[in-house]
Amino acid sequence: MKLITFSREGITQRVGAIINEEVIDLHVAYKSLLASEGKIRAQQIADAFIPADMTGFLQGGKESLGLAKKAIHYALENKTDSGYRLVYDLNEVKVEAPVPVPGKMICVGHNYREHILEMKRELPPYPVIFAKFANTVIGPQDDIPFFPISEQLDYEAEFAFVIGKRARNVSQEEALDYVAGYTIVNDVTYRDLQRRTIQWLQGKTVEGSAPMGPWLVTADELQDPAGLEVVLTVNGEERQRSNTANLVFSVQYLVKFLSSLMTLEPGDIILTGTPGGVGVARDPQVFLKDGDVVKIKIDQIGTLENRVTSVKEAVEVN
Amino acid sequence: MKLITFSREGITQRVGAIINEEVIDLHVAYKSLLASEGKIRAQQIADAFIPADMTGFLQGGKESLGLAKKAIHYALENKTDSGYRLVYDLNEVKVEAPVPVPGKMICVGHNYREHILEMKRELPPYPVIFAKFANTVIGPQDDIPFFPISEQLDYEAEFAFVIGKRARNVSQEEALDYVAGYTIVNDVTYRDLQRRTIQWLQGKTVEGSAPMGPWLVTADELQDPAGLEVVLTVNGEERQRSNTANLVFSVQYLVKFLSSLMTLEPGDIILTGTPGGVGVARDPQVFLKDGDVVKIKIDQIGTLENRVTSVKEAVEVN
Repeated sequence: MKLITFSREGITQRVGAIINEEVIDLHVAYKSLLASEGKIRAQQIADAFIPADMTGFLQGGKESLGLAKKAIHYALENKTDSGYRLVYDLNEVKVEAPVPVPGKMICVGHNYREHILEMKRELPPYPVIFAKFANTVIGPQDDIPFFPISEQLDYEAEFAFVIGKRARNVSQEEALDYVAGYTIVNDVTYRDLQRRTIQWLQGKTVEGSAPMGPWLVTADELQDPAGLEVVLTVNGEERQRSNTANLVFSVQYLVKFLSSLMTLEPGDIILTGTPGGVGVARDPQVFLKDGDVVKIKIDQIGTLENRVTSVKEAVEVN
Repeated sequence: MKLITFSREGITQRVGAIINEEVIDLHVAYKSLLASEGKIRAQQIADAFIPADMTGFLQGGKESLGLAKKAIHYALENKTDSGYRLVYDLNEVKVEAPVPVPGKMICVGHNYREHILEMKRELPPYPVIFAKFANTVIGPQDDIPFFPISEQLDYEAEFAFVIGKRARNVSQEEALDYVAGYTIVNDVTYRDLQRRTIQWLQGKTVEGSAPMGPWLVTADELQDPAGLEVVLTVNGEERQRSNTANLVFSVQYLVKFLSSLMTLEPGDIILTGTPGGVGVARDPQVFLKDGDVVKIKIDQIGTLENRVTSVKEAVEVN
């Protein structure tokens, strides 16, 4: 299933599923299904099992996913209910980041084998991990804001997975059972800010620097996260290409490693690292500029495309 | 005002104020005050202006703080209302971390002037910033869990401030207007994990590694965050001592610096760094062990005291 978060003018964000260019509003569809079954407390049951927000929905785990499938079936046969719409055309809604407010965004550095070896480095014994905060998240239809605090805006194509079940000390064998699904994130980085101190956070967590989407492909549909080609282009020119088979630390290993340190919660997102070919490492270096279109394509997921837009002045929120 | 988050058995966490060893339940007190004024929608108004959780309460800004003061006044004169208690004795409740789920936890490294100079380093031109995630937060009455993933558990006394108003591109002159208040955090660190890669996150965000509290002293009562003595002891033995006057990057500077990178939100917490004297830097090195009591005292705030407890086995949450 392709899960999205979507919005319509004046309507709060909702979790939806995309089927053939149509968007099913899962919360409303499930509530209608319950009402059609004569359930008097349809609203409360829908709030409990298919709440309108993605993190809440993911907290329901496989039980909620199963109910969502029933709701989709119902919605496709009953596209409206008492004036409420259960289904929209894709072009009637705005598609937002699938997980608009992740509890944790954990990023992995130096994780593509061939890139490490071509740099004549040794494979690392432990993953390098660092953070972004949720203020960075924007959606697949948003522009990447380029704030006038740096001239070194760079892209990083990343295959990302989202946690679907509370995880603590999980083995590699069981790891994929804790993954809700997969998506694409561009780990947009202000290189000079990243490197002006020994910790990268200040170049990584600038507002709007994590375009995510276009959707979450659920783990029941994408059963093997290895072997997916990852390609990034800028204005159509290929800049990064690798395959998730080249990850030094696999999805399974990362679930084990991270859950041995901390409790992972539904809605947490892990960015698995970026292949070689980032702008700062090219000769000559090349950075993103106003109007550039950055497109990331990953097999079995889809394409995340965002335009860079210079923000003339820092926005004052006072 | 001293703001706390507290819980009672079987009751969800609530925001409270401590006055003379009594705890006022601000949400219930305000609802009772509204009802006494004949407001029919007292519950809804209380939910809007003084919700039961700290982050929600902080989102109400100075308006909610003003209403809370009225609620306290009412509660101290009317300690129960129709069987509901508005006031508890301090020893009847469990005091939790004042901000149990911060949206962001931003930590500053290398920020005490005298410690940098004694290490013969130059004062840094920019703050080093790094992250912890909210899974680290525990309260003033909780033990620090020591997981068997390391033998190098270390303390870091930190003066911390909490954002009270959405902040973006705020000047130093206006910075303190965006601070809700001040508290103490022990930035507990697994040193070997911190140092086994070039990014510190994995040694910083281990479960339960951020004891916070005992309360939030509101900014109207603590008007100058400089000049506060910070002292940390382990089992009564002094290990760290400095003064917030020695911060290279002041609270005001940090609000300006961080809000130029990202939007700060009510409930975000910033840890301003730790003085010299951490265990790993001592000669000989000394780390925390099961049963150690770590106490941090900061002028005008109070004392945060937690015991270290070894966790025999990693907890399986499956």
